[in-house]
Amino acid sequence: MEKTQVFYNHIKRFINIDPEQFLEILPFFHPGKVAKKEALMRGGRHCRNCFFVLEGCLQMYYINEKGVEKTVQFAIENWWLSDFLAYHHQEKSDFFIRAVEPSHVLSLSHENQQKLLAAHPLMESYFRQVYQIAYGASIMRVKYLFDYSKEEIFFHFTSQFPEFVQRVPQYMLASYLGLTPEYVSEIRKKLS
Amino acid sequence: MEKTQVFYNHIKRFINIDPEQFLEILPFFHPGKVAKKEALMRGGRHCRNCFFVLEGCLQMYYINEKGVEKTVQFAIENWWLSDFLAYHHQEKSDFFIRAVEPSHVLSLSHENQQKLLAAHPLMESYFRQVYQIAYGASIMRVKYLFDYSKEEIFFHFTSQFPEFVQRVPQYMLASYLGLTPEYVSEIRKKLS
Repeated sequence: MEKTQVFYNHIKRFINIDPEQFLEILPFFHPGKVAKKEALMRGGRHCRNCFFVLEGCLQMYYINEKGVEKTVQFAIENWWLSDFLAYHHQEKSDFFIRAVEPSHVLSLSHENQQKLLAAHPLMESYFRQVYQIAYGASIMRVKYLFDYSKEEIFFHFTSQFPEFVQRVPQYMLASYLGLTPEYVSEIRKKLS
Repeated sequence: MEKTQVFYNHIKRFINIDPEQFLEILPFFHPGKVAKKEALMRGGRHCRNCFFVLEGCLQMYYINEKGVEKTVQFAIENWWLSDFLAYHHQEKSDFFIRAVEPSHVLSLSHENQQKLLAAHPLMESYFRQVYQIAYGASIMRVKYLFDYSKEEIFFHFTSQFPEFVQRVPQYMLASYLGLTPEYVSEIRKKLS
C-alpha cells in the first residue's frame, strides 16, 4: 500500500475527508525515512516537530542523572509522538526520539500545524480526537503503574501487545514498564 | 466574579471568541454545585460527562483489588477532568470522581460535546489545545514517577504547588504521588 494511503485511511477514521481535500493537507506533512537508531529529536533542543508513524516504531526517552536511558513512550503505526508540552509552547524538550526499527514517518512542524489548522479547520477535529484518546490512555497507564505489581505489569503488557513485545529490545521494554532489564530477563527465564 | 466569567476568561486564552458567541455556547455546559465529598462519577458506570472546575477541587480515583483508593488525577480551577478514554468511546469507566472541597463545576455530556462541536467548530480548536497540553503534562508526570525518588517526588510537588498541597487531604496527596500515607506523614514530621 502507498504510504500516504495509510495516513488517509487513518484520518478517515476520525473525520470526513475526501481524496481532494486530503491532497490539499498532505503538503503540510513532511515524509521521511529513518534508519534504525536514527535520532528524530534530541534532548535540550527546541521541540519543533511531532511525528506520525506510517511504518515502523519510534521510542521517546530521556537520560536521567545517572546517565540511564528511560523510555516514556513508544509509537507504532498510526500513532503520533512528541513532547507535546514543549511542542505546544514551542520550548526546549528534555526528551529524545529515535527509531527502534527502520521507519517511515510524517513530521509536522509546529509552524505547519498552525498553518494547516488555519487553512483546514476540519483538522482541528482530527487532532482533538487523537489527543483526547492519547490523554485518556495516559491516565490509564498511570493506573497500571500504580496498580499492578512488576510481574503483573509485564504479563499484562506482553499479553495485550504480543507483537509489539517482539519488535522492541528487552532493555527498552523494561524501561518503558518501569522495570530493570535484569528483572525482565529473570521473568523471561522463568517462563522458558 | 461571575462564575461564567471565569470560564469565558479561560476560553479566551485559547481561541478568539466574543461575548455573543460565548453566550451561544454556554447552554451546552451544565453548571452545578457539589458539596465536599459528593460524587460526580462512579466506577462501573457509563462515562457520560467531563467536568470543568470553576471553583474548588475534584479528585479522580479508582479502588484497587485490596479495596484501597488510588488517586490518578486532581483538577482545580480551569482544568477538565474525566476518564477521557471511556468518555471518547462512550463506555463504562473504572474511575470515580468526587469533590475534595465544595466546588462549582460545568458538566459537558458527550452528547452535548458532539452538538457543541457541530454547531461551533471553533470549539474544536479550544479542546484540541486543552487536550494537547493535558497529554503533554501526563507524559511529564510519567517522567517524574520514573525519575524521582519518593522523597524527591514529594518535595518537587510541594514546592511547585504549595497552595494545592494545603487544599488536599494528606492521604489523597500520598496516593496521587504513588506514596503511602505513612511515608508522607513521616516526611512531614522530619520537616517540622
